[in-house]
Amino acid sequence: MNMTAVSWGDTLVIVDAGVMFPDPELLGVDLVIPDLGYLESRGRRANALVLTHGHEDHIGGVAHVLRHVDGPVYGTPLTLALAKSKLERHGVDPGARFVAVQPRDRVTVGDLSIEFVRVTHSIPGAVALAISTPVGTVVHTGDFKIDQTPLDGEHFDFHRFAELGSQGVLALLGDSTNIERPGFTGSEFEVVEAFEELFASTRGKLVVTTFATSIYRMQILVNLARESGRKVAFVGRGMIEHSQVAMRLGHLEIPPGLLIREADVRNFAGRQVVCITTGSQGEPLAALPRIAVDNHRHVAIEPGDRVVFSARAIPGNEKAINRMINHLARRGADVVTAATRRVHVSGHGSEEELKLMLSLVRPRYFVPIHGEFRQRSRYARLAERLAGPGPDRMTVLMAENGDVLRFDGSSGTIADRVHAGRVLIDGPGIGEVGDEVLRDRRHLAEDGLVVPVLVIDKQTGAVEGPDIVTRGLVLEPDGGQLLREAERIIVDLLGETSVEERSDRGLVAEKIRVELRRFFRKRAGRRPMVLPVIMEI
Amino acid sequence: MNMTAVSWGDTLVIVDAGVMFPDPELLGVDLVIPDLGYLESRGRRANALVLTHGHEDHIGGVAHVLRHVDGPVYGTPLTLALAKSKLERHGVDPGARFVAVQPRDRVTVGDLSIEFVRVTHSIPGAVALAISTPVGTVVHTGDFKIDQTPLDGEHFDFHRFAELGSQGVLALLGDSTNIERPGFTGSEFEVVEAFEELFASTRGKLVVTTFATSIYRMQILVNLARESGRKVAFVGRGMIEHSQVAMRLGHLEIPPGLLIREADVRNFAGRQVVCITTGSQGEPLAALPRIAVDNHRHVAIEPGDRVVFSARAIPGNEKAINRMINHLARRGADVVTAATRRVHVSGHGSEEELKLMLSLVRPRYFVPIHGEFRQRSRYARLAERLAGPGPDRMTVLMAENGDVLRFDGSSGTIADRVHAGRVLIDGPGIGEVGDEVLRDRRHLAEDGLVVPVLVIDKQTGAVEGPDIVTRGLVLEPDGGQLLREAERIIVDLLGETSVEERSDRGLVAEKIRVELRRFFRKRAGRRPMVLPVIMEI
Repeated sequence: MNMTAVSWGDTLVIVDAGVMFPDPELLGVDLVIPDLGYLESRGRRANALVLTHGHEDHIGGVAHVLRHVDGPVYGTPLTLALAKSKLERHGVDPGARFVAVQPRDRVTVGDLSIEFVRVTHSIPGAVALAISTPVGTVVHTGDFKIDQTPLDGEHFDFHRFAELGSQGVLALLGDSTNIERPGFTGSEFEVVEAFEELFASTRGKLVVTTFATSIYRMQILVNLARESGRKVAFVGRGMIEHSQVAMRLGHLEIPPGLLIREADVRNFAGRQVVCITTGSQGEPLAALPRIAVDNHRHVAIEPGDRVVFSARAIPGNEKAINRMINHLARRGADVVTAATRRVHVSGHGSEEELKLMLSLVRPRYFVPIHGEFRQRSRYARLAERLAGPGPDRMTVLMAENGDVLRFDGSSGTIADRVHAGRVLIDGPGIGEVGDEVLRDRRHLAEDGLVVPVLVIDKQTGAVEGPDIVTRGLVLEPDGGQLLREAERIIVDLLGETSVEERSDRGLVAEKIRVELRRFFRKRAGRRPMVLPVIMEI
Repeated sequence: MNMTAVSWGDTLVIVDAGVMFPDPELLGVDLVIPDLGYLESRGRRANALVLTHGHEDHIGGVAHVLRHVDGPVYGTPLTLALAKSKLERHGVDPGARFVAVQPRDRVTVGDLSIEFVRVTHSIPGAVALAISTPVGTVVHTGDFKIDQTPLDGEHFDFHRFAELGSQGVLALLGDSTNIERPGFTGSEFEVVEAFEELFASTRGKLVVTTFATSIYRMQILVNLARESGRKVAFVGRGMIEHSQVAMRLGHLEIPPGLLIREADVRNFAGRQVVCITTGSQGEPLAALPRIAVDNHRHVAIEPGDRVVFSARAIPGNEKAINRMINHLARRGADVVTAATRRVHVSGHGSEEELKLMLSLVRPRYFVPIHGEFRQRSRYARLAERLAGPGPDRMTVLMAENGDVLRFDGSSGTIADRVHAGRVLIDGPGIGEVGDEVLRDRRHLAEDGLVVPVLVIDKQTGAVEGPDIVTRGLVLEPDGGQLLREAERIIVDLLGETSVEERSDRGLVAEKIRVELRRFFRKRAGRRPMVLPVIMEI
């Protein structure tokens, strides 16, 4: 969930508005976005939102972040188009606030001016930012690799980065994701060879799964389909939507007659079709996981078909992906992954590319971003070695989420730390899941629930009940017996309670809670949530 | 959770009794064991339990499976010692039922006779089984690789497998886990080189995490510690227990004075110590994850220390491991994993070893086991190629969990399919988590809970309440308002209900449940569990 704020005086610009997909331990949570409570608490609003490229972890939170922005949203046309389709799902119309820019364009926002510098990545329209401030230029790389043979001929802007470096850069915020990989990542083009072979040797359908934003990958598959006489079907909502956006903006070219609809796949022999599907991560509602269990309306796997995973496995998804591969193998598909064939190439630069960025930009301060601590600290060490000693040497600032970097004419420091947590989004609205809700859900999920219910007569102090209801609780083999004992405990406890005490519902509830917790722990080794309900009549 | 039953006439032998560790979606479940309901429903009990080696996925379910066994439990001394410590935790004393065997021993169980054949694996005392039946010999490989330089000089019994092959084997049940890896897996010994370098170059503490059953790995680390002048501390309960068992049985030799206790680690300089710890999978209560967040009583990471992951990541644990590595890096540790150094070697044979097993044993029928469908089907294809055509050619039987293979004098077939599910174990006892409990937990976990409570006067039909309690439910921003509306819905619903209807608590509860579910779905996009409680006075 990438996000950076850059500020001078009254001007505040937010760079990117990413989401994170929740860990399984975030029960029932749909999305995780950055917490902007810090800005809110200071009554500050952003004068602009700037988007570097159209990946979920950079634009997925736009609908939520836009509430904190008064001014325009800048991005290249593809980036804005992808962000717009997200807003539409939330019923928000960005209207004239979306301002499309091109590389080398420059916009002014209050005291800041922002230039867009083309980088190469696994999605078209990716830019770095050169943000001019009164004390110097801050370069934010966004996500990038150095693809020297880009499919669309839109080259990495070496020359502009070099010019910026010559003019002097105050600080570089640099993508560290792939610093642990030696060498160069390689061009998007490099998957062509493996796919040429796969198109030629597959007897049945070729089913390729990739991210719905992998528009270069789509173009490569379209080109090979044309050459090998296969029709192309985009399968899965995200794939269909994004391919349409990409075609409309000229990022994806498909000759007339090549494209067929999902529903038409069945009308062609397997060897005449390539399907490009969503679901590479095993997401249960996406196309490929449904195809794998033969539960897709239009596409079925038959022996002789081949399924190609042209995407990396996002950590945490390995098991779901594995299950899906087993299902596909069971239906007779030959499954090809990046483990054995070069069918995927990363969008993030490796060690040599990240060193090159540093060498070109030559910043006074270097801040590794986009990566876990291990990647960022490795990039930091490398930067220190690259800079060498000397009075003008580069200073590395290892910042954590929430750190405030302050630069003045003479120095740059980590000056402050503010709250920068996460907001958990549950459901269709913008309901935020608090820690307490999550704690309750976890408790309920792991240990189940006991609800003892009592009725107390306000006048007489007479008690009706208790009744005990349980859910999600294992009390084998003597569950009924245990619940009767629990009821007796409540009766005994009430017997020891004066009529006066009984009039305090909160007190009685707390006593019951404590006693029943102890009882279930000792007698059954269970720690259910105990939720006493006491009614007064 | 490996388990096979072999039967002839009235004789029934169970091979292995493994557990599986639960997926996160199995909320609150501690262990998963095979379901023996099939045997139970036919009133059949086993005459013996035979264990091939001491890994969790082969012995972890012994305490639960033993209830179905009347006769002895056979295994090598180390295997039985590890199984025994599990039983003790369940308060079960196996007594004289545990019968230790050695490779080449043969035991008779009813109509069957079982010979133990030494294999090499990542734990000492691993055996395959040659089970003689009236219609031929069934060979079950257990887990194995072919380690030609075993640390303890206990060699893979090529000669006995060859003899069995010469005499004729009816069926081979063969480990397929690593069929996707080309070549040979390599000896346990192969990690020595990388560790020699790590012992020499580490300035501070060396902390090595591996599985608590990796006794060969322990011995290698002990030997290098002695040579390099470091003391050895086993850290974490499993590591301490297993090292003691291994020492007692002569599988682990530690020179006097080399071993120190966990609590003594702090009394030595970092460069004088190697810690061997549990927690390689990021299990929250194990030693290394606690060390990583500086929450371990005895061991703390300091800059200059080095942490080595000498174990594979079990699929599903990647995120937890990643988080732990970040914490360790933050404390200044240099983290080394098998991705960059040869600090781990698998215990399962690769393609060439699995082909060799087939070539030696030359079975009439081949059944790939221990692996997911993709591995087993790959091994099956390879076996068919290896066997070639001809009248006496090997037949591959691709069996699924629950399939019953039937062999007579002339043929072998998949003759039947029986229920062979899983049993979910929650908590210290043998409480089995049913589907309903799990469904409730999942519902509670993802959507939270609404408990509307009502009191109805049996005589008059007068109603007190409703009160509504919620847990784990997000109702921002107008939660109070929503709950008041929900209360009104219940009041209205009761207003439309006759006094007679109100006397049927079940009916009233169901009406409320349906109405409130609809209300929360429509008004708030939520689907909480609605659990009406109705008291009568």
